[in-house]
Amino acid sequence: MISKALERRDKLREALIEAAERRIAAGGLVSLKTRDLARDISIANGAVYNLVEDVDELILRVGSRTLARLDAALTTAEGDGLASPRETLVRIAVAYCDFAAENLELWRALFEHRMAPGKPVPEWAIDEQMNLFRHIYHPLATLFPERSQGELGVTARSLFSAVHGMVLLGLEQKLIAVPVGALREEIAAIVRAMVDGLVEKAG
Amino acid sequence: MISKALERRDKLREALIEAAERRIAAGGLVSLKTRDLARDISIANGAVYNLVEDVDELILRVGSRTLARLDAALTTAEGDGLASPRETLVRIAVAYCDFAAENLELWRALFEHRMAPGKPVPEWAIDEQMNLFRHIYHPLATLFPERSQGELGVTARSLFSAVHGMVLLGLEQKLIAVPVGALREEIAAIVRAMVDGLVEKAG
Repeated sequence: MISKALERRDKLREALIEAAERRIAAGGLVSLKTRDLARDISIANGAVYNLVEDVDELILRVGSRTLARLDAALTTAEGDGLASPRETLVRIAVAYCDFAAENLELWRALFEHRMAPGKPVPEWAIDEQMNLFRHIYHPLATLFPERSQGELGVTARSLFSAVHGMVLLGLEQKLIAVPVGALREEIAAIVRAMVDGLVEKAG
Repeated sequence: MISKALERRDKLREALIEAAERRIAAGGLVSLKTRDLARDISIANGAVYNLVEDVDELILRVGSRTLARLDAALTTAEGDGLASPRETLVRIAVAYCDFAAENLELWRALFEHRMAPGKPVPEWAIDEQMNLFRHIYHPLATLFPERSQGELGVTARSLFSAVHGMVLLGLEQKLIAVPVGALREEIAAIVRAMVDGLVEKAG
Protein backbone atom coordinates (compact mmCIF):
# COMPACT_ATOMS: atom_id res chain seq x y z
CA MET A 1 0.00 0.00 0.00
CA ILE A 2 2.72 2.42 0.99
CA SER A 3 4.78 1.67 -2.13
CA LYS A 4 1.68 2.17 -4.31
CA ALA A 5 1.13 5.58 -2.73
CA LEU A 6 4.79 6.51 -3.23
CA GLU A 7 4.66 5.36 -6.82
CA ARG A 8 1.59 7.47 -7.44
CA ARG A 9 3.28 10.47 -5.83
CA ASP A 10 6.38 10.03 -8.02
CA LYS A 11 4.23 9.89 -11.13
CA LEU A 12 2.29 12.99 -10.14
CA ARG A 13 5.52 14.80 -9.33
CA GLU A 14 6.90 13.92 -12.74
CA ALA A 15 3.67 15.13 -14.34
CA LEU A 16 3.91 18.38 -12.36
CA ILE A 17 7.47 19.03 -13.53
CA GLU A 18 6.52 18.27 -17.14
CA ALA A 19 3.51 20.59 -16.90
CA ALA A 20 5.78 23.35 -15.54
CA GLU A 21 8.23 22.72 -18.38
CA ARG A 22 5.46 23.10 -20.98
CA ARG A 23 4.20 26.30 -19.32
CA ILE A 24 7.69 27.85 -19.19
CA ALA A 25 8.48 26.78 -22.76
CA ALA A 26 5.27 28.44 -23.96
CA GLY A 27 5.24 31.65 -21.95
CA GLY A 28 8.46 32.02 -19.98
CA LEU A 29 9.05 32.02 -16.25
CA VAL A 30 6.61 34.91 -15.66
CA SER A 31 3.72 32.79 -16.93
CA LEU A 32 4.23 30.05 -14.33
CA LYS A 33 1.28 29.82 -11.89
CA THR A 34 0.84 26.85 -9.55
CA ARG A 35 -2.95 27.20 -9.98
CA ASP A 36 -2.58 26.45 -13.71
CA LEU A 37 -0.25 23.54 -13.02
CA ALA A 38 -2.66 22.01 -10.51
CA ARG A 39 -5.39 22.21 -13.14
CA ASP A 40 -3.06 20.81 -15.84
CA ILE A 41 -2.54 17.61 -13.86
CA SER A 42 -5.95 17.56 -12.12
CA ILE A 43 -4.93 18.01 -8.49
CA ALA A 44 -6.04 20.51 -5.85
CA ASN A 45 -4.06 23.77 -5.69
CA GLY A 46 -2.52 23.03 -2.30
CA ALA A 47 -1.52 19.50 -3.34
CA VAL A 48 1.29 20.96 -5.46
CA TYR A 49 3.24 21.45 -2.23
CA ASN A 50 2.99 17.74 -1.40
CA LEU A 51 4.98 17.11 -4.57
CA VAL A 52 7.64 19.83 -4.43
CA GLU A 53 8.83 21.97 -1.55
CA ASP A 54 8.11 25.26 -3.32
CA VAL A 55 8.11 26.96 -6.72
CA ASP A 56 11.91 27.39 -6.55
CA GLU A 57 12.35 23.62 -6.39
CA LEU A 58 9.90 23.13 -9.24
CA ILE A 59 11.77 25.60 -11.45
CA LEU A 60 15.11 24.03 -10.55
CA ARG A 61 13.74 20.57 -11.50
CA VAL A 62 12.67 21.93 -14.88
CA GLY A 63 16.14 23.51 -15.18
CA SER A 64 17.67 20.14 -14.44
CA ARG A 65 15.85 18.64 -17.43
CA THR A 66 16.95 21.55 -19.63
CA LEU A 67 20.57 21.13 -18.56
CA ALA A 68 20.43 17.38 -19.27
CA ARG A 69 19.24 18.09 -22.82
CA LEU A 70 21.88 20.79 -23.26
CA ASP A 71 24.50 18.33 -22.03
CA ALA A 72 23.36 15.78 -24.64
CA ALA A 73 23.41 18.45 -27.39
CA LEU A 74 26.98 19.48 -26.50
CA THR A 75 28.09 15.83 -26.41
CA THR A 76 26.62 15.28 -29.88
CA ALA A 77 28.40 18.43 -31.11
CA GLU A 78 31.73 17.11 -29.87
CA GLY A 79 31.23 14.16 -32.21
CA ASP A 80 33.83 11.41 -32.36
CA GLY A 81 36.42 13.42 -30.44
CA LEU A 82 38.70 13.62 -33.47
CA ALA A 83 38.28 17.37 -34.01
CA SER A 84 41.07 19.64 -32.74
CA PRO A 85 40.46 21.23 -29.33
CA ARG A 86 40.04 24.59 -31.13
CA GLU A 87 37.35 23.20 -33.45
CA THR A 88 35.71 21.35 -30.56
CA LEU A 89 35.34 24.66 -28.73
CA VAL A 90 33.84 26.23 -31.85
CA ARG A 91 31.41 23.32 -32.26
CA ILE A 92 30.13 23.43 -28.71
CA ALA A 93 29.77 27.23 -28.84
CA VAL A 94 27.66 26.94 -32.00
CA ALA A 95 25.69 24.05 -30.46
CA TYR A 96 25.04 26.23 -27.40
CA CYS A 97 23.69 28.95 -29.70
CA ASP A 98 21.44 26.46 -31.52
CA PHE A 99 20.16 25.00 -28.25
CA ALA A 100 19.29 28.47 -26.94
CA ALA A 101 17.51 29.40 -30.18
CA GLU A 102 15.49 26.16 -30.17
CA ASN A 103 14.68 26.24 -26.44
CA LEU A 104 14.48 29.98 -25.96
CA GLU A 105 12.22 30.27 -22.92
CA LEU A 106 13.57 27.21 -21.10
CA TRP A 107 17.12 28.44 -21.71
CA ARG A 108 16.24 31.96 -20.51
CA ALA A 109 14.63 30.47 -17.40
CA LEU A 110 17.99 28.94 -16.42
CA PHE A 111 19.41 32.44 -16.06
CA GLU A 112 16.38 34.49 -15.06
CA HIS A 113 15.29 32.38 -12.12
CA ARG A 114 16.14 33.83 -8.72
CA MET A 115 15.70 31.90 -5.49
CA ALA A 116 13.44 33.41 -2.81
CA PRO A 117 15.46 35.99 -0.79
CA GLY A 118 17.95 34.38 1.60
CA LYS A 119 17.53 30.91 0.13
CA PRO A 120 20.69 29.46 -1.41
CA VAL A 121 20.68 27.44 -4.63
CA PRO A 122 20.83 23.78 -3.50
CA GLU A 123 24.10 21.87 -3.96
CA TRP A 124 22.66 19.38 -6.46
CA ALA A 125 21.61 22.21 -8.79
CA ILE A 126 25.02 23.90 -8.59
CA ASP A 127 26.73 20.56 -9.27
CA GLU A 128 24.62 20.02 -12.38
CA GLN A 129 25.49 23.47 -13.70
CA MET A 130 29.20 23.08 -12.96
CA ASN A 131 29.27 19.63 -14.55
CA LEU A 132 28.49 21.16 -17.94
CA PHE A 133 31.72 23.17 -17.84
CA ARG A 134 33.65 19.97 -18.62
CA HIS A 135 32.71 20.47 -22.28
CA ILE A 136 34.82 23.65 -22.30
CA TYR A 137 37.36 22.57 -19.72
CA HIS A 138 38.62 19.43 -21.49
CA PRO A 139 39.59 21.00 -24.83
CA LEU A 140 41.21 23.90 -22.93
CA ALA A 141 43.23 21.42 -20.83
CA THR A 142 44.49 19.83 -24.07
CA LEU A 143 45.38 23.24 -25.52
CA PHE A 144 47.11 24.50 -22.37
CA PRO A 145 48.62 21.49 -20.58
CA GLU A 146 50.84 23.76 -18.47
CA ARG A 147 47.92 25.58 -16.84
CA SER A 148 46.58 24.72 -13.39
CA GLN A 149 43.01 23.52 -12.86
CA GLY A 150 42.17 26.90 -11.34
CA GLU A 151 43.53 28.82 -14.32
CA LEU A 152 41.70 26.55 -16.75
CA GLY A 153 38.51 27.06 -14.75
CA VAL A 154 38.83 30.83 -15.07
CA THR A 155 39.42 30.61 -18.83
CA ALA A 156 36.51 28.19 -19.25
CA ARG A 157 34.24 30.58 -17.38
CA SER A 158 35.41 33.55 -19.47
CA LEU A 159 34.89 31.71 -22.75
CA PHE A 160 31.46 30.53 -21.68
CA SER A 161 30.39 34.00 -20.53
CA ALA A 162 31.60 35.60 -23.76
CA VAL A 163 29.70 33.10 -25.93
CA HIS A 164 26.67 33.39 -23.67
CA GLY A 165 26.67 37.17 -24.16
CA MET A 166 26.80 36.82 -27.92
CA VAL A 167 23.91 34.34 -27.88
CA LEU A 168 21.91 36.41 -25.41
CA LEU A 169 22.12 39.72 -27.28
CA GLY A 170 22.03 38.02 -30.67
CA LEU A 171 18.72 36.31 -29.87
CA GLU A 172 17.21 39.40 -28.23
CA GLN A 173 14.35 41.00 -30.07
CA LYS A 174 15.78 44.35 -29.14
CA LEU A 175 19.14 46.02 -29.43
CA ILE A 176 21.04 43.90 -31.91
CA ALA A 177 18.91 41.00 -33.16
CA VAL A 178 20.79 38.86 -35.67
CA PRO A 179 19.56 35.97 -37.87
CA VAL A 180 20.67 32.69 -36.24
CA GLY A 181 22.77 31.69 -39.27
CA ALA A 182 24.78 34.92 -39.09
CA LEU A 183 25.02 34.62 -35.32
CA ARG A 184 26.51 31.11 -35.59
CA GLU A 185 29.19 32.43 -37.96
CA GLU A 186 30.02 35.37 -35.71
CA ILE A 187 30.31 33.10 -32.70
CA ALA A 188 32.56 30.67 -34.57
CA ALA A 189 34.81 33.55 -35.74
CA ILE A 190 35.10 35.06 -32.26
CA VAL A 191 35.75 31.73 -30.53
CA ARG A 192 38.50 30.95 -33.08
CA ALA A 193 39.99 34.41 -32.51
CA MET A 194 39.89 34.02 -28.71
CA VAL A 195 41.51 30.58 -28.84
CA ASP A 196 44.16 31.75 -31.32
CA GLY A 197 44.91 34.78 -29.16
CA LEU A 198 45.17 32.67 -26.02
CA VAL A 199 47.43 30.12 -27.76
CA GLU A 200 49.64 32.89 -29.16
CA LYS A 201 50.06 34.38 -25.69
CA ALA A 202 50.79 30.99 -24.11
CA GLY A 203 53.22 29.94 -26.87
CA MET B 1 1.53 82.57 -18.85
CA ILE B 2 1.86 79.75 -21.36
CA SER B 3 5.64 79.75 -21.14
CA LYS B 4 5.45 79.68 -17.32
CA ALA B 5 3.18 76.64 -17.53
CA LEU B 6 5.50 74.93 -20.00
CA GLU B 7 8.49 75.71 -17.82
CA ARG B 8 6.72 74.23 -14.80
CA ARG B 9 5.82 71.14 -16.82
CA ASP B 10 9.45 70.68 -17.95
CA LYS B 11 10.67 70.94 -14.37
CA LEU B 12 8.11 68.42 -13.14
CA ARG B 13 8.97 66.11 -16.00
CA GLU B 14 12.65 66.31 -15.07
CA ALA B 15 11.77 65.63 -11.43
CA LEU B 16 9.68 62.63 -12.49
CA ILE B 17 12.55 61.14 -14.52
CA GLU B 18 14.97 61.70 -11.64
CA ALA B 19 12.55 60.08 -9.20
CA ALA B 20 12.24 57.07 -11.52
CA GLU B 21 16.02 56.90 -11.76
CA ARG B 22 16.35 56.81 -7.97
CA ARG B 23 13.66 54.13 -7.66
CA ILE B 24 15.26 51.93 -10.35
CA ALA B 25 18.75 52.42 -8.88
CA ALA B 26 17.46 51.35 -5.45
CA GLY B 27 15.20 48.44 -6.34
CA GLY B 28 15.46 47.62 -10.03
CA LEU B 29 12.89 47.89 -12.76
CA VAL B 30 10.40 45.64 -10.95
CA SER B 31 10.15 48.16 -8.11
CA LEU B 32 8.98 51.00 -10.37
CA LYS B 33 5.40 52.08 -9.58
CA THR B 34 3.92 55.30 -10.96
CA ARG B 35 1.97 55.71 -7.70
CA ASP B 36 5.28 55.97 -5.78
CA LEU B 37 6.70 58.40 -8.32
CA ALA B 38 3.61 60.64 -8.12
CA ARG B 39 4.06 60.73 -4.34
CA ASP B 40 7.82 61.33 -4.67
CA ILE B 41 7.25 64.54 -6.62
CA SER B 42 3.89 65.46 -5.01
CA ILE B 43 1.56 65.21 -7.97
CA ALA B 44 -1.70 63.28 -8.48
CA ASN B 45 -1.35 59.73 -9.80
CA GLY B 46 -2.94 60.47 -13.16
CA ALA B 47 -0.81 63.59 -13.65
CA VAL B 48 2.19 61.38 -14.41
CA TYR B 49 0.71 60.84 -17.87
CA ASN B 50 0.66 64.58 -18.56
CA LEU B 51 4.47 64.46 -18.22
CA VAL B 52 5.33 61.28 -20.14
CA GLU B 53 3.34 59.27 -22.61
CA ASP B 54 3.61 56.03 -20.65
CA VAL B 55 5.91 54.00 -18.39
CA ASP B 56 7.90 52.83 -21.41
CA GLU B 57 8.82 56.41 -22.25
CA LEU B 58 9.73 57.10 -18.63
CA ILE B 59 12.06 54.08 -18.49
CA LEU B 60 13.62 55.02 -21.84
CA ARG B 61 14.28 58.57 -20.53
CA VAL B 62 16.04 57.11 -17.49
CA GLY B 63 17.96 54.82 -19.87
CA SER B 64 18.97 57.87 -21.86
CA ARG B 65 20.57 59.38 -18.75
CA THR B 66 22.33 56.08 -17.98
CA LEU B 67 23.68 55.85 -21.54
CA ALA B 68 24.95 59.45 -21.36
CA ARG B 69 26.89 58.65 -18.19
CA LEU B 70 28.21 55.42 -19.73
CA ASP B 71 29.29 57.40 -22.79
CA ALA B 72 31.20 59.82 -20.56
CA ALA B 73 32.84 56.95 -18.65
CA LEU B 74 33.99 55.30 -21.88
CA THR B 75 35.33 58.61 -23.20
CA THR B 76 37.29 59.08 -19.97
CA ALA B 77 38.66 55.53 -20.28
CA GLU B 78 39.90 56.23 -23.81
CA GLY B 79 42.05 58.98 -22.29
CA ASP B 80 44.26 61.08 -24.52
CA GLY B 81 43.83 58.79 -27.52
CA LEU B 82 47.50 57.81 -27.43
CA ALA B 83 46.93 54.20 -26.39
CA SER B 84 47.07 51.54 -29.12
CA PRO B 85 43.71 50.48 -30.55
CA ARG B 86 44.18 47.12 -28.79
CA GLU B 87 44.71 48.78 -25.40
CA THR B 88 41.88 51.22 -26.07
CA LEU B 89 39.55 48.26 -26.56
CA VAL B 90 40.78 46.74 -23.30
CA ARG B 91 40.29 50.03 -21.43
CA ILE B 92 36.74 50.55 -22.59
CA ALA B 93 35.85 46.92 -21.85
CA VAL B 94 37.14 47.32 -18.30
CA ALA B 95 35.40 50.69 -17.98
CA TYR B 96 32.16 49.03 -19.11
CA CYS B 97 32.61 46.44 -16.36
CA ASP B 98 33.25 49.14 -13.75
CA PHE B 99 30.25 51.16 -14.86
CA ALA B 100 27.98 48.10 -14.65
CA ALA B 101 29.28 47.23 -11.17
CA GLU B 102 28.76 50.80 -9.93
CA ASN B 103 25.36 51.28 -11.57
CA LEU B 104 24.10 47.72 -11.32
CA GLU B 105 20.34 48.24 -11.37
CA LEU B 106 20.34 51.12 -13.85
CA TRP B 107 22.61 49.13 -16.13
CA ARG B 108 20.42 46.02 -15.82
CA ALA B 109 17.36 48.13 -16.61
CA LEU B 110 18.88 49.01 -20.01
CA PHE B 111 18.70 45.36 -20.99
CA GLU B 112 15.71 44.09 -19.01
CA HIS B 113 13.23 46.69 -20.16
CA ARG B 114 10.74 45.44 -22.76
CA MET B 115 8.35 47.77 -24.58
CA ALA B 116 4.62 47.05 -24.29
CA PRO B 117 3.69 44.35 -26.86
CA GLY B 118 3.58 45.64 -30.43
CA LYS B 119 5.22 48.95 -29.55
CA PRO B 120 8.58 49.53 -31.24
CA VAL B 121 11.53 51.16 -29.47
CA PRO B 122 11.49 54.81 -30.65
CA GLU B 123 14.16 55.92 -33.14
CA TRP B 124 15.78 58.37 -30.73
CA ALA B 125 16.42 55.61 -28.20
CA ILE B 126 17.89 53.27 -30.83
CA ASP B 127 20.12 56.09 -32.08
CA GLU B 128 21.44 56.74 -28.59
CA GLN B 129 22.27 53.06 -28.11
CA MET B 130 23.93 52.76 -31.52
CA ASN B 131 25.93 55.93 -30.97
CA LEU B 132 27.82 54.22 -28.12
CA PHE B 133 29.19 51.61 -30.51
CA ARG B 134 31.60 54.24 -31.90
CA HIS B 135 33.83 53.57 -28.86
CA ILE B 136 34.39 50.03 -30.17
CA TYR B 137 34.07 50.81 -33.86
CA HIS B 138 36.86 53.41 -34.09
CA PRO B 139 39.71 51.33 -32.64
CA LEU B 140 38.56 48.38 -34.77
CA ALA B 141 38.60 50.58 -37.88
CA THR B 142 42.21 51.54 -37.08
CA LEU B 143 43.17 47.89 -36.53
CA PHE B 144 41.44 46.62 -39.68
CA PRO B 145 41.54 49.43 -42.27
CA GLU B 146 40.73 46.98 -45.09
CA ARG B 147 37.37 45.98 -43.60
CA SER B 148 34.05 47.46 -44.75
CA GLN B 149 31.79 49.41 -42.40
CA GLY B 150 29.41 46.46 -42.32
CA GLU B 151 32.13 44.00 -41.36
CA LEU B 152 33.44 46.35 -38.67
CA GLY B 153 29.91 46.73 -37.34
CA VAL B 154 29.57 42.96 -37.01
CA THR B 155 32.89 42.65 -35.20
CA ALA B 156 32.04 45.57 -32.89
CA ARG B 157 28.74 43.93 -32.00
CA SER B 158 30.45 40.59 -31.34
CA LEU B 159 33.10 42.13 -29.12
CA PHE B 160 30.52 44.10 -27.20
CA SER B 161 28.26 41.08 -26.71
CA ALA B 162 31.16 38.94 -25.51
CA VAL B 163 32.28 41.54 -22.96
CA HIS B 164 28.67 42.13 -21.93
CA GLY B 165 28.28 38.40 -21.24
CA MET B 166 31.38 38.33 -19.06
CA VAL B 167 30.17 41.34 -17.09
CA LEU B 168 26.63 40.00 -16.81
CA LEU B 169 27.53 36.55 -15.50
CA GLY B 170 30.49 37.87 -13.52
CA LEU B 171 28.30 40.30 -11.58
CA GLU B 172 25.50 37.77 -11.09
CA GLN B 173 24.99 36.62 -7.55
CA LYS B 174 24.36 33.16 -8.90
CA LEU B 175 26.16 30.79 -11.19
CA ILE B 176 29.65 32.19 -11.40
CA ALA B 177 30.01 35.32 -9.30
CA VAL B 178 33.52 36.77 -9.44
CA PRO B 179 35.12 39.61 -7.42
CA VAL B 180 35.18 42.74 -9.62
CA GLY B 181 39.00 42.95 -9.52
CA ALA B 182 39.35 39.42 -10.88
CA LEU B 183 36.60 40.05 -13.40
CA ARG B 184 38.41 43.11 -14.76
CA GLU B 185 41.56 41.04 -15.29
CA GLU B 186 39.67 38.24 -17.01
CA ILE B 187 37.96 40.70 -19.31
CA ALA B 188 41.25 42.39 -20.19
CA ALA B 189 42.86 39.00 -20.93
CA ILE B 190 39.99 37.83 -23.12
CA VAL B 191 39.72 41.12 -25.04
CA ARG B 192 43.48 41.03 -25.73
CA ALA B 193 43.19 37.41 -26.89
CA MET B 194 40.23 38.22 -29.15
CA VAL B 195 41.99 41.21 -30.70
CA ASP B 196 45.25 39.26 -31.16
CA GLY B 197 43.35 36.37 -32.76
CA LEU B 198 41.46 38.72 -35.10
CA VAL B 199 44.69 40.53 -36.07
CA GLU B 200 46.48 37.23 -36.66
CA LYS B 201 43.71 36.04 -38.97
CA ALA B 202 43.61 39.36 -40.86
CA GLY B 203 47.38 39.58 -41.19
